[in-house]
Amino acid sequence: MAPQYAPSLRSRLAPLLLIVQTGFIIIAALCFETKETNKLDRKPFLHFYPEFQDVNVMVILGFGFLCTFPLRYGFSGSGFNLLVAVIATQWALILNGIDSWYSTKIIRIDLKSIIKAELCAVSALISIGSVLGKTNPVQLTLIALLEVTGFVLNEWLLQTLLKVRPPNSIMLLHVFGALFGLMLTWILYRDGSKQGFEKEKFDKKSGLFSMLGVVFLWMFWPSFNSVLVVDDRTRLEAVCSTYLALAISAVTAAALAVLSSPRGKLNLIQMQSCILAGGAAVGVSVSVVQQPWEAMALGFTAAILSTLGYRYLKSHLLIAFECHDTCAALSTHGLPGLLGWLAQLVLQIKYCDDHTVAVRFAVFHICTLFTTVSLSLSMGTLTAFLLKWKFWRPPQNKKCFDDQAFWEVFTHKSQRKKNIRNNNIHFYSANLMFCVLQFPNLVVRK
Amino acid sequence: MAPQYAPSLRSRLAPLLLIVQTGFIIIAALCFETKETNKLDRKPFLHFYPEFQDVNVMVILGFGFLCTFPLRYGFSGSGFNLLVAVIATQWALILNGIDSWYSTKIIRIDLKSIIKAELCAVSALISIGSVLGKTNPVQLTLIALLEVTGFVLNEWLLQTLLKVRPPNSIMLLHVFGALFGLMLTWILYRDGSKQGFEKEKFDKKSGLFSMLGVVFLWMFWPSFNSVLVVDDRTRLEAVCSTYLALAISAVTAAALAVLSSPRGKLNLIQMQSCILAGGAAVGVSVSVVQQPWEAMALGFTAAILSTLGYRYLKSHLLIAFECHDTCAALSTHGLPGLLGWLAQLVLQIKYCDDHTVAVRFAVFHICTLFTTVSLSLSMGTLTAFLLKWKFWRPPQNKKCFDDQAFWEVFTHKSQRKKNIRNNNIHFYSANLMFCVLQFPNLVVRK
Amino acid sequence: MAPQYAPSLRSRLAPLLLIVQTGFIIIAALCFETKETNKLDRKPFLHFYPEFQDVNVMVILGFGFLCTFPLRYGFSGSGFNLLVAVIATQWALILNGIDSWYSTKIIRIDLKSIIKAELCAVSALISIGSVLGKTNPVQLTLIALLEVTGFVLNEWLLQTLLKVRPPNSIMLLHVFGALFGLMLTWILYRDGSKQGFEKEKFDKKSGLFSMLGVVFLWMFWPSFNSVLVVDDRTRLEAVCSTYLALAISAVTAAALAVLSSPRGKLNLIQMQSCILAGGAAVGVSVSVVQQPWEAMALGFTAAILSTLGYRYLKSHLLIAFECHDTCAALSTHGLPGLLGWLAQLVLQIKYCDDHTVAVRFAVFHICTLFTTVSLSLSMGTLTAFLLKWKFWRPPQNKKCFDDQAFWEVFTHKSQRKKNIRNNNIHFYSANLMFCVLQFPNLVVRK
Repeated sequence: MAPQYAPSLRSRLAPLLLIVQTGFIIIAALCFETKETNKLDRKPFLHFYPEFQDVNVMVILGFGFLCTFPLRYGFSGSGFNLLVAVIATQWALILNGIDSWYSTKIIRIDLKSIIKAELCAVSALISIGSVLGKTNPVQLTLIALLEVTGFVLNEWLLQTLLKVRPPNSIMLLHVFGALFGLMLTWILYRDGSKQGFEKEKFDKKSGLFSMLGVVFLWMFWPSFNSVLVVDDRTRLEAVCSTYLALAISAVTAAALAVLSSPRGKLNLIQMQSCILAGGAAVGVSVSVVQQPWEAMALGFTAAILSTLGYRYLKSHLLIAFECHDTCAALSTHGLPGLLGWLAQLVLQIKYCDDHTVAVRFAVFHICTLFTTVSLSLSMGTLTAFLLKWKFWRPPQNKKCFDDQAFWEVFTHKSQRKKNIRNNNIHFYSANLMFCVLQFPNLVVRK
Repeated sequence: MAPQYAPSLRSRLAPLLLIVQTGFIIIAALCFETKETNKLDRKPFLHFYPEFQDVNVMVILGFGFLCTFPLRYGFSGSGFNLLVAVIATQWALILNGIDSWYSTKIIRIDLKSIIKAELCAVSALISIGSVLGKTNPVQLTLIALLEVTGFVLNEWLLQTLLKVRPPNSIMLLHVFGALFGLMLTWILYRDGSKQGFEKEKFDKKSGLFSMLGVVFLWMFWPSFNSVLVVDDRTRLEAVCSTYLALAISAVTAAALAVLSSPRGKLNLIQMQSCILAGGAAVGVSVSVVQQPWEAMALGFTAAILSTLGYRYLKSHLLIAFECHDTCAALSTHGLPGLLGWLAQLVLQIKYCDDHTVAVRFAVFHICTLFTTVSLSLSMGTLTAFLLKWKFWRPPQNKKCFDDQAFWEVFTHKSQRKKNIRNNNIHFYSANLMFCVLQFPNLVVRK
Repeated sequence: MAPQYAPSLRSRLAPLLLIVQTGFIIIAALCFETKETNKLDRKPFLHFYPEFQDVNVMVILGFGFLCTFPLRYGFSGSGFNLLVAVIATQWALILNGIDSWYSTKIIRIDLKSIIKAELCAVSALISIGSVLGKTNPVQLTLIALLEVTGFVLNEWLLQTLLKVRPPNSIMLLHVFGALFGLMLTWILYRDGSKQGFEKEKFDKKSGLFSMLGVVFLWMFWPSFNSVLVVDDRTRLEAVCSTYLALAISAVTAAALAVLSSPRGKLNLIQMQSCILAGGAAVGVSVSVVQQPWEAMALGFTAAILSTLGYRYLKSHLLIAFECHDTCAALSTHGLPGLLGWLAQLVLQIKYCDDHTVAVRFAVFHICTLFTTVSLSLSMGTLTAFLLKWKFWRPPQNKKCFDDQAFWEVFTHKSQRKKNIRNNNIHFYSANLMFCVLQFPNLVVRK
């Protein structure tokens, strides 16, 4: 039997990317403008820049290298993540600006708007974790475009209908992304998933690369949770709470990993997904967590929930629902996100003196979750059906988790030989120049 | 002969971590509070945040990946470092707050207190470098708890008895950590050390991972040395001095490595340990180094001392004293720390006009070192004897420097199969849900 | 045939480094002084520190790990980059200060002067990318010294003769470095280059390490372009423009890579070099790019130019001109730099109302490029002829791209055995101490 090659993406990916990118540039030419937010407040640049870079590192490096654990999928894991991140960010910049475009006919580009767009892109990055290794970059680009559309729509609904304030509405990205990804991977289920894909495993080095990504996410998560908070006091609280929650998550995840393993051993990928749980939980409830112990307890519970999710729910979903969640986005982001939502509800009610206000808040809060979940599930379903179309040329089961499907993995040497052969025409056309220009060459090198 | 498995840590590590962590949360619930330092000073957040993150990166990523050079110990090197760092930081947060707890009944949590706690944790991270590969995570947790206790006690003694100001007292962490680690590795000596452990070697890739850690330590060391300095002028001096000292260390370390090698070659692990020497030396003497050339000369001397220590003292210690210092903590942190102490003495006396003041300072300064050294050695001895107890189930000699003793290194695939088998009960319990929920599944996917 | 060893650098590298380093310390002792820039402006420290660290990360980590892609050249790639960076930075600190030394007899060292020196060092780092793998550290040190001299001279000429303002003159480092490197690699051409060196290839893991370096360059490029800009408004514009240009470059580079590959696949090294093109182009034209869409269009064009350069020009140069540009510095930095220069010309003329002013600007601007190009080419030629001297002991063709030529790649174990053997004398001299000090040892360990 002849070896099966992965289908070429030349006629799919290149036009899609070029059209999308040209479209963005045209929209930018019509609407974008860079301006400082206002003249009175002189410190916007300083105020945001270090955290902007932290978030940037999380989005590009953290999520990118998190996805490099499959043995032969490192180039795709990090490379496609970058691609999705930049497309999603640009698209989110445009969609987030529609509001201000209606009133002022310009979309203002500053650090804050880029940060906001990057946070929207994170929801797409969480989702593509669920389908990691089983999709091609054309599909990932479509996910990026559609998910960001859904997420911005969700945010707009929450802000206009339910009066949810910005940091809270955006932080639901964990829930949105995880459920969106779950629908994707459920509908795009492949027969190979249950036995495990041939190349879906990690080794000593690829595990360390993903550890690197996780460590960056872990370290900069305080910036992620605090960057959109406006006043300095709450910002400090957000940073400290997130730091503590993450610290407790790490210890608890290690303890539970050892406890749940028959031979008392740790599991690297499980650890990587569970030590981050505290950050997501505190992120969703960032506006109400004030006491350090609340954050710590939240981190503790999130790590327990996330470990249980990884150990039992993940294989459960695969067996019972044929839903193969590669990066365990549900247990890393989904469950802790829901826990954070619950914590926000409980804490807010606890702080309310007035019974009526508390009930009203509860109703609104439940509506918030309901809107997010239903929009996420329906957009996920829609996207998944679009992606099922064979036109996008998904890789065969054999080529899942394999860089060879998308990347030239020849050595430099053989590639250069090929180039030399291919460039024959260029070569002859260069002959004249060659003769003329070899002259100094001969002089210089005896 | 049956293959020897490393002893299971299920009944040791999990309870220890859970008890410690629950204890921390209870203490936090009773005492912790997040507050901005004071209302007049409006910039504490901005002032510290970028450097807080730099220190965070050093502690989690720098020290973590520094320890990944042994060929098969990458998961443990980076993972256990994270575990020790977060436990030590939490414990230091509590211990550092005892003072303020006496007077105000609350322990204030802000960026500065977290940074201080992380610096205390660094002393533990230096020590575990000495016993890297030869201990299990239970022992590492105990080291973290005991060393931080000792270090905070030392700092308290220095500050109350000898009136040493904060940045100076904390920066002795290099000396404290190195000597503490030396006592640990001396008393915990294993017979295998002299011949070299089977798996204590590095290869092309694991060497690059540890290079990554070193590079992060190197880059952010200026933040490490300057973060606790209060006034802006001294802070700038600290940054510039540290940068210059590190630059000179790097060049000098390379020159000496080539000089001391019979075939004129560099040695990666030696370079990694010696290019950092300047940072430690300037750190200890940060309050008195004012001229750039002083910092440069200090970096130069520190690199020489550190190279000599690595080349000759390390093997000497092993042969003559049966003391196997895995990461060469003595030559990376110990000797440059002592040099920095000496430099501080000399420079301070040079700046003194009054003879009496100079003598007084010298006496106090010598007492400072004496206290630190004796407390470090005695706490190290105490900890080491505690760790010798077989109850903690240390790994066998064969399992030293081996991730397999602590980590599940099965591929994803075999692990999932196992999970599927183990989850039979869950499977049957899920059958009902399965039947009900397969319905949409069937509809959706033809 | 006996195996050929690479020539020992003991008698070349060590003296060179020690002389250079001692010289720098002496000059520092005579001239350097650390001072805050001025007393009125109270925020210089805060203002620069985060960006200083970003640039630092780019210089040490970004460029260093970018060079680790050759399979067996990881230690050299990252290690020699560090060496060159610190030597070049120190030398640039001195040369940049000559001006102020004439008037005030001191060279002021603060964050700004270090940043400026690091930017000068970057021009050297770009050049050594072209000769990566084909030179030894002695030659690299000489390149660092001579290239920085040339670059500072160029900057001084531009600033005094043509009145080019600092950020613009420094940003020509891309053009300067690329052309300098091109001359080096042209004159230092080796016969082995055309067939491809035996070890000049990458694998899954070394590709990921260089991806890591590239990602850091990509993420922090906004800091690189904005750090020298003085007023906050332009700085914000520089950050946003660079971010957008890089984002568009990434997407466009992916599209073109797929388009230009016969089988529709991406090429990792090509992607790595082309996604950075937008940053270089915007960097050179940073002072005039105001509208986001201009930056985006520039990023788009730069990526196209860079891809064409990588695919066709690189092999062309090798075949027709015998010029083997390892890291494709020409297409990553050279061509986008020239594009940026052109963009600056066009935009500046567009903004000019007055015809005379526009013509005058154009003449000056063309002179700027002419000076830079000619100085770069002539200094490159000069340096290359110096490096051709056999006295520097360049590695044989067989040892190109091989860490073994410069690094001890023994395992720890065999090395320790050797050390033990070598240290016999130390051993005997230690015997007395041994006997005395074994006593507590015996007591302690039963």
